[in-house]
Amino acid sequence: MSQAPQNRYKADLREFSFLLFEHFKLQELLGKEPFSAFAEDDVKMIFSECYKFACDVTGPLNGVGDSQGCRVVDGAVKTPDGFKDAWKRLYEAGWKSVAVDPEYGGQGAPHAVAALVEEMLSGSNTAFNMYPGLAFGAAEVIEAFGTDAQKAKYLSKMFSGVFGGTMCLTEPQAGTDVGAARSVAKRRDDGRYEISGTKIFISGGDQDLTENIIHLVLARVEGAAPGTKGLSLFIVPKLHVGDDGALGEANDVALGGIEHKMGINGSATCVLNFGEGGRCLGELVGTVESVGMSQMFHMMNGARIAVGLQGLGVASSAYLNALAYSRDRKQGSSMRNFKDASAPRVPIIEHADIRRMLLEMKAKVEGVRALAVKLAFHQDSARALAGPAKADDKVGYHKGQVELLTPLVKAYSSDQAFRVCELAIQTFGGAGYIKDYGVEQYCRDSKIFSIYEGTNHVQAMDLVGRKLGMAGGANLMALGADIARFVAANKEHPAFAKDVATLARAQEAITAAAMRIISWFQGGRAAMVPLNANRFLEMMSETVVGWLLLEQGVIAHAARGRLGPEHHDDDFYEGKVASAQFFARNVLPGVMFKLELLQNEDESALGISDAAFATL
Amino acid sequence: MSQAPQNRYKADLREFSFLLFEHFKLQELLGKEPFSAFAEDDVKMIFSECYKFACDVTGPLNGVGDSQGCRVVDGAVKTPDGFKDAWKRLYEAGWKSVAVDPEYGGQGAPHAVAALVEEMLSGSNTAFNMYPGLAFGAAEVIEAFGTDAQKAKYLSKMFSGVFGGTMCLTEPQAGTDVGAARSVAKRRDDGRYEISGTKIFISGGDQDLTENIIHLVLARVEGAAPGTKGLSLFIVPKLHVGDDGALGEANDVALGGIEHKMGINGSATCVLNFGEGGRCLGELVGTVESVGMSQMFHMMNGARIAVGLQGLGVASSAYLNALAYSRDRKQGSSMRNFKDASAPRVPIIEHADIRRMLLEMKAKVEGVRALAVKLAFHQDSARALAGPAKADDKVGYHKGQVELLTPLVKAYSSDQAFRVCELAIQTFGGAGYIKDYGVEQYCRDSKIFSIYEGTNHVQAMDLVGRKLGMAGGANLMALGADIARFVAANKEHPAFAKDVATLARAQEAITAAAMRIISWFQGGRAAMVPLNANRFLEMMSETVVGWLLLEQGVIAHAARGRLGPEHHDDDFYEGKVASAQFFARNVLPGVMFKLELLQNEDESALGISDAAFATL
Repeated sequence: MSQAPQNRYKADLREFSFLLFEHFKLQELLGKEPFSAFAEDDVKMIFSECYKFACDVTGPLNGVGDSQGCRVVDGAVKTPDGFKDAWKRLYEAGWKSVAVDPEYGGQGAPHAVAALVEEMLSGSNTAFNMYPGLAFGAAEVIEAFGTDAQKAKYLSKMFSGVFGGTMCLTEPQAGTDVGAARSVAKRRDDGRYEISGTKIFISGGDQDLTENIIHLVLARVEGAAPGTKGLSLFIVPKLHVGDDGALGEANDVALGGIEHKMGINGSATCVLNFGEGGRCLGELVGTVESVGMSQMFHMMNGARIAVGLQGLGVASSAYLNALAYSRDRKQGSSMRNFKDASAPRVPIIEHADIRRMLLEMKAKVEGVRALAVKLAFHQDSARALAGPAKADDKVGYHKGQVELLTPLVKAYSSDQAFRVCELAIQTFGGAGYIKDYGVEQYCRDSKIFSIYEGTNHVQAMDLVGRKLGMAGGANLMALGADIARFVAANKEHPAFAKDVATLARAQEAITAAAMRIISWFQGGRAAMVPLNANRFLEMMSETVVGWLLLEQGVIAHAARGRLGPEHHDDDFYEGKVASAQFFARNVLPGVMFKLELLQNEDESALGISDAAFATL
Repeated sequence: MSQAPQNRYKADLREFSFLLFEHFKLQELLGKEPFSAFAEDDVKMIFSECYKFACDVTGPLNGVGDSQGCRVVDGAVKTPDGFKDAWKRLYEAGWKSVAVDPEYGGQGAPHAVAALVEEMLSGSNTAFNMYPGLAFGAAEVIEAFGTDAQKAKYLSKMFSGVFGGTMCLTEPQAGTDVGAARSVAKRRDDGRYEISGTKIFISGGDQDLTENIIHLVLARVEGAAPGTKGLSLFIVPKLHVGDDGALGEANDVALGGIEHKMGINGSATCVLNFGEGGRCLGELVGTVESVGMSQMFHMMNGARIAVGLQGLGVASSAYLNALAYSRDRKQGSSMRNFKDASAPRVPIIEHADIRRMLLEMKAKVEGVRALAVKLAFHQDSARALAGPAKADDKVGYHKGQVELLTPLVKAYSSDQAFRVCELAIQTFGGAGYIKDYGVEQYCRDSKIFSIYEGTNHVQAMDLVGRKLGMAGGANLMALGADIARFVAANKEHPAFAKDVATLARAQEAITAAAMRIISWFQGGRAAMVPLNANRFLEMMSETVVGWLLLEQGVIAHAARGRLGPEHHDDDFYEGKVASAQFFARNVLPGVMFKLELLQNEDESALGISDAAFATL
């Protein structure tokens, strides 16, 4: 029952081009600075080539990585068969440097393009793509905060796949509570630091893919303040690197072991011991101590968006696999013939309950994609406007939207990815529970997304505790104005008037919920905020997703009218209309329902005493 | 990082005794026929002894079974280390025969007691408990429909663990669509049948625990009708059994392979080939052909309840493990000190979001338990009333409630088990994703519950298509009357008046939804029914669970008033009040919300054309 490595990855590139060129009008940013090197056809070529790579190279290794996992041999991590070759081909093809600055060998493409490239890389092989993803994220931190010497020494090699990279935050006693870190850095006369401490859950903490690994390690310089304020960030190479770039001897970084996990087995999750022998040397990122947390947050914001894209990629492929199975698998007869035992068997896509699950998956996947790419468009727009020529307050608007949407992308995408995978398994029935079909791996892989890079509750608290109040609430108001403009323009739409009214109510519900949250902060009932933060994040995510799907529905509805039923794209546009309707009629009303629950102000979870949870 | 086999199973026996003796008043059935052998103390002793067994014997093998899985050695299944010894000890202790008729060596205990015993066996080791569970279910079919000779030949050995048993329905082309089975039975002159065909997904289809296995195989006698109506059920032993009980030569039943699955790895999921050599002999269960489907349904009803108990057992232990972790794990400071980085770290149970997750798990676990045991009480009450002395229409009432609640127990428990496991993982954070802590196994194991023994959509269609209309709708009306009595008695309750009003609205919503479903059936819109069936099942489950939790809350509230805050049970009762409030204020309002969605009559999933789901 086992077979040769098989690609199960699927993506619908028509959806990608719809999103970029019909919905968000990427063409308006292309052909001028900073994206003057790109035309619409270039972007489409990137997608089709990358999809080919995902199906030919990383996709077939997804099951291999899961079943083999990583092993520790002679104190070093051995990655699954084929990973090393895939790594080489990934960097040869340039897929990890799509959005990298040309100064460091990249293509400088828009984030919106890079986001969909990431979706394909993560969707085809989540575990594998974590290695280059972390190398990329670590390099971005050095690019943003490192000295010129550090950039010259590390960046090209990290962006080109010669060196790997990690982010080392978590310690046994310091998970969500990063500030409890005990790792210590001792200043030396030569300007470097002696690092000591144990870090856990370090993805790619060791591997056999690159000739060196650059760890970014949070540690406290002796005498620095407690909590996150006293943390500094250090570059700690696995092998020392000379000023000429030559590799020196091994640094004092020891692999303490790897974890056995529910999923992403091809990604080595490591315990790293720094300075057990008293000889671990690191250099401060940049020149200032005790700003490590804000430096790390630069990487973390990117990493949070990347987790959203992981969820999207896995969920999308899970959906498309379930769809393919539902077209192939025959079971039962049509409902019209339910009394005739001899009636012909039909593909299960004909059954109403299967269609309900498929359309729920479709709408959620497309909605999350629109949300993630919307964020990327704000990044690109901010960059495009930030040129010396015409900096204006639009830049602030776009940057504010990036801040506001980041926790939504991370948390809503990861939560929904798990839901979509669950539905995909259910669509497969018994086959979904069997490893051969691959969807159960998607489900297992996806569970980590709600946990790492800040749990989804951390995202929710970031949203209600920081992002809502930023700039005096201007970001939320600007988002509300964007939605209100759409509502005003479409409230009498022939196909969507009812749904646009639902969206308007959802938007009002967000405002009402935000007001209630503020009243809790101000009224001495602060504990009500974390109790409802996840609910609020979900309400806001569903409203934004509902809005974006309705925008797509309106565009698709118009295209159908313009092109007519014989046009080859008519089916595609019909699917867009259906996604928008399904979401608006089955998910979006939940925003009002959740407002009702939030306004009920149930305090039972706060009031119950610890001893009352169980007698043991 | 690996250690000796460790028990992770946890149960709260105080909850068991509350449920049986304070909520459902089991004592009123004890001490008289057919339960004259049992007193309250006997039942409590059974629970404490069985819990000990689950923690000492089956619990420590749960992780072992998961990591080792089953293997095929020389064409036969080898179960994980320790399973054979556990099997022996299980039957020595008598835990699989708690509710078995004393005629066959059982104790004849009430189903309500046996249900909680099953919860502990399945919760401590789902995979292991499937082997005896299937042997038990197969024996029950022979007990109900077999000839006296068949009963004499097989039953004692199957109930005592000398023989195993299976149910063989599924074929590659016949999953949910059981009637598409192609296995064939050819009548022989000696009254036996020659069986041929391939069955898949056969749990315990082979194992090394028993000296023989009795397969119950659905097959079509040559010339019988197509569909389910033409299926007969056959006893097909792995080794032939002489009339004297002596084991003969091997029957022609070949192991075709085992599946590699997401979870329940210790349970061998087999492909069985019957009659490849043309020598597979079976005997008809009873004496009548083509009634196999209704015979199999006898087993299936029990199996569906058993799946509900699997979900309950796993979810309950997942919750209690998350609770223990939340009391132990220190992370972050109290919200009161959030600005002080040096404030002492606190157990995470002090954080609002953790408490929310814990209370949601608690309420759902207790609610599902109340639902499952309510069903068992109806079984016991029907049996107690069915004596020759006073058969009355109360028996019909109880039997009708068993029919009505069975799909709820199977589907709602299994869906919520997966949710609860997800919350348990989230409570653990990163540790939840690591195999060492065991909760990720609970999550993987639990995913099959929504699929096997009839997918949850099959349950929902059984509910709306068969159970609602049974006896002219009398069962649903009787349930409504039970709830209405509670509402009338408690509508001015000092603590729960608002929640009782919510329950009354939920009950009305069920009625309204049922009316709408009937109108679809009658109005030529039958496809709307499967589209909304799962939603209706969830509405009805939440209403029943909300009712039962409120009953418990009222009882606990009274007990607190009577006993005072110093009583050692006060914490426990406080927890009961909190579960009822949480569910009534956070879950039960969803019934009205779902009615609104159902009444919207969104048809987008029916209207979309197959080609519109994706361009691939």
